[in-house]
Amino acid sequence: MLPNLTPDVALAAKLFDELRAKSFDGVGITREAYGPGERMAHALMAETADRLGLERRTDPVGNLYMTLPGADRAAKQVILGSHLDSVQQGGNFDGAAGVLAGLAAVAGMQRAGFTPARDVTVMVTRAEEAGAWFPTSFPGSRGALGRLAAAELEVKRMDTGRSLADHMAEEGFDPGFVRRGERVLGPDNVAAYLEVHIEQGPVLEAEGIPIGIVTGIPGSRRLRAARVLGETNHSGGTPRKYRRDAAMALAELAVTLDEEWVRLEARGHRLVVTFCVMGTTAEAGFTKIPGEAVFQLDVRSQDLRCTDRIYEVLYEAVARIEARRGVRFELGEEGGSRPSSMDDGVQAALKRAAEALSIPHLIMPSGGGHDAVAFAQAGIPAGMLFVRNQHGSHNPKEAMRIEDFAEACKVAQRFAAEYGA
Amino acid sequence: MLPNLTPDVALAAKLFDELRAKSFDGVGITREAYGPGERMAHALMAETADRLGLERRTDPVGNLYMTLPGADRAAKQVILGSHLDSVQQGGNFDGAAGVLAGLAAVAGMQRAGFTPARDVTVMVTRAEEAGAWFPTSFPGSRGALGRLAAAELEVKRMDTGRSLADHMAEEGFDPGFVRRGERVLGPDNVAAYLEVHIEQGPVLEAEGIPIGIVTGIPGSRRLRAARVLGETNHSGGTPRKYRRDAAMALAELAVTLDEEWVRLEARGHRLVVTFCVMGTTAEAGFTKIPGEAVFQLDVRSQDLRCTDRIYEVLYEAVARIEARRGVRFELGEEGGSRPSSMDDGVQAALKRAAEALSIPHLIMPSGGGHDAVAFAQAGIPAGMLFVRNQHGSHNPKEAMRIEDFAEACKVAQRFAAEYGA
Repeated sequence: MLPNLTPDVALAAKLFDELRAKSFDGVGITREAYGPGERMAHALMAETADRLGLERRTDPVGNLYMTLPGADRAAKQVILGSHLDSVQQGGNFDGAAGVLAGLAAVAGMQRAGFTPARDVTVMVTRAEEAGAWFPTSFPGSRGALGRLAAAELEVKRMDTGRSLADHMAEEGFDPGFVRRGERVLGPDNVAAYLEVHIEQGPVLEAEGIPIGIVTGIPGSRRLRAARVLGETNHSGGTPRKYRRDAAMALAELAVTLDEEWVRLEARGHRLVVTFCVMGTTAEAGFTKIPGEAVFQLDVRSQDLRCTDRIYEVLYEAVARIEARRGVRFELGEEGGSRPSSMDDGVQAALKRAAEALSIPHLIMPSGGGHDAVAFAQAGIPAGMLFVRNQHGSHNPKEAMRIEDFAEACKVAQRFAAEYGA
Repeated sequence: MLPNLTPDVALAAKLFDELRAKSFDGVGITREAYGPGERMAHALMAETADRLGLERRTDPVGNLYMTLPGADRAAKQVILGSHLDSVQQGGNFDGAAGVLAGLAAVAGMQRAGFTPARDVTVMVTRAEEAGAWFPTSFPGSRGALGRLAAAELEVKRMDTGRSLADHMAEEGFDPGFVRRGERVLGPDNVAAYLEVHIEQGPVLEAEGIPIGIVTGIPGSRRLRAARVLGETNHSGGTPRKYRRDAAMALAELAVTLDEEWVRLEARGHRLVVTFCVMGTTAEAGFTKIPGEAVFQLDVRSQDLRCTDRIYEVLYEAVARIEARRGVRFELGEEGGSRPSSMDDGVQAALKRAAEALSIPHLIMPSGGGHDAVAFAQAGIPAGMLFVRNQHGSHNPKEAMRIEDFAEACKVAQRFAAEYGA
């Protein structure tokens, strides 16, 4: 095996600091998708790639590729990828950890004079934080994979009101590539895609384990603009039978779904049910029965039967509560996504690498979506490694210990060195 | 009996119109307590009293008395009273209905040449809508009854920031009267106090009955600034066991109290339990587990054991939910009031009057508090008559049919003619 192969974590640490210094906005980290922040971060990586002597290119939608050539240049490449954009006032690690883990891995290979069997490419995707900028998901990676629809180029960036196509063009890229249905990546030239990412949830921290091997990314069924309509009335003068209390109706719905969650979990299912927003509106006030309540519901599971079961219970409960409490639910448009499984072969290879390195690891699902979803959906074997972190993600308090990051780098490096070799 | 005694409803109808014309603010009715709106309304009543030839006086805190002398001037008087101030952008009937019912009753007596056995006084109290202006209750009626503490004169009117004493003095009245502990009314000179008022709730409308005879005014236990503190986390990445979901904790509390209400009602108790405000705060948002939720709770019953039982269940539930969900409740300061019963003799007299006049009536509790509470607490036999109304109270849509009002006037007039005669 490869006893002397270690990642260049010091390089990554230095780049984390540079990224932070160049994108701290006074409160947190802001690196706009297809904007100055992301441009700066890509430029810093390109500079680093040039200094390391990696092959470097950018695809027509702006993704950056930094390749350490393998022994067999014709073999399908292994990609270590993630993104460098952030939410507004986010943290320094969501996205950047994956890119810098990739660079640490290939720089460590170079340092050891190691030539991988196949090309190892560090890919920096564009605009992964779509939720914060453009109302679409993974336009960068999907653009590279030829899986971004032309119509999606017309979504407007929420802060500027200008289209994705405009912002792409402004940054020097070619939306025509998407319109023509072209691609640069696919199952024909990518052996595997691995994304290192901070966990975003508190599980690794709570369990005391530095890294996680991700089994899949849950699908979701979501309501973003649901309402309950009742009738405002005097809280003292309105007996129970004349009430149409929107807030109490909503509380009953929330508790009903929560109880179903407990039942499903007791039967061994894994899912999450969150009323992200739940409550009365500005019209509510003291001595009034709430006539209106609003909510946002986020239900996720890798098992479609679980999300579907929660919605079955939701619809039954809505009908029962409407009849019982004289209210009306307006659920609004339902959104969501299909679950994506991480590739079994990739998971097994990650597990072998972690075991060979004696690094404790947890087998776990992802909470949020990532570029790895786009690769999995394109039929490319995809996997993810989570790094233990503190204070969640998408906030200025994002935290990650460099020792934990180093463990993920080691596993990613060994995976890249060995996968399909 | 008194077959030809009818109230002068036309006079009341004309005064309703004049009040509306002089206090419509573009959206609703605004008659500020101890301010221009209330001043205007009192002046209109004083003018009417003078035209009718009623004895008129104003007490040192500004309450207006318009008296039709009885046969025995030394006998304790019967008071028909209510208020003329309103909430901001309220309706025309809350308060005014009671004053104008009183005037219609005595004007009808005059018209019939009827002299009551004892003085019948129409009393117009001050500042009954304390909740909307001054953070105190019934300062006008309590001031007349010598039951307003000197310290309460220092509460600030919420819109002006100036004290109740200042506003009293500005309107030409004497806060020193309160400071000296004096009074103009008491069990020694008032035989009974009757207040006609719109119902505020939907019960009479739903039951198809024009008037209600009030049994009492519930006591309350209230939380105005309660919170649940949990922890914000990623809704996708945080499994159930690591959650501290403030909103779900609040929903569980609400449903728990609602279920206890159902149990108490099934055992024949009457109470109301309202989460007037309930929900997540501005920090909540999509893909986040709510870390904070706020609520206002209003529990009322004429039976103290019911309000106490709800709070017992509240405290048990809070402890259980805190332990189960890893959240912390901050209930804040508790407020509330003691229940007041309407006098049995007054209720019986009202019932006799309604039956003699063949007017359908419902025996019912009041939802909100009224000046009648102050009289009952001062040991004066007090009662209330509710008038069926539409669209509740304290809003521009307040509605009341003049036919229903006329029924209440008839009962009030007969009560005043016969009580203690």
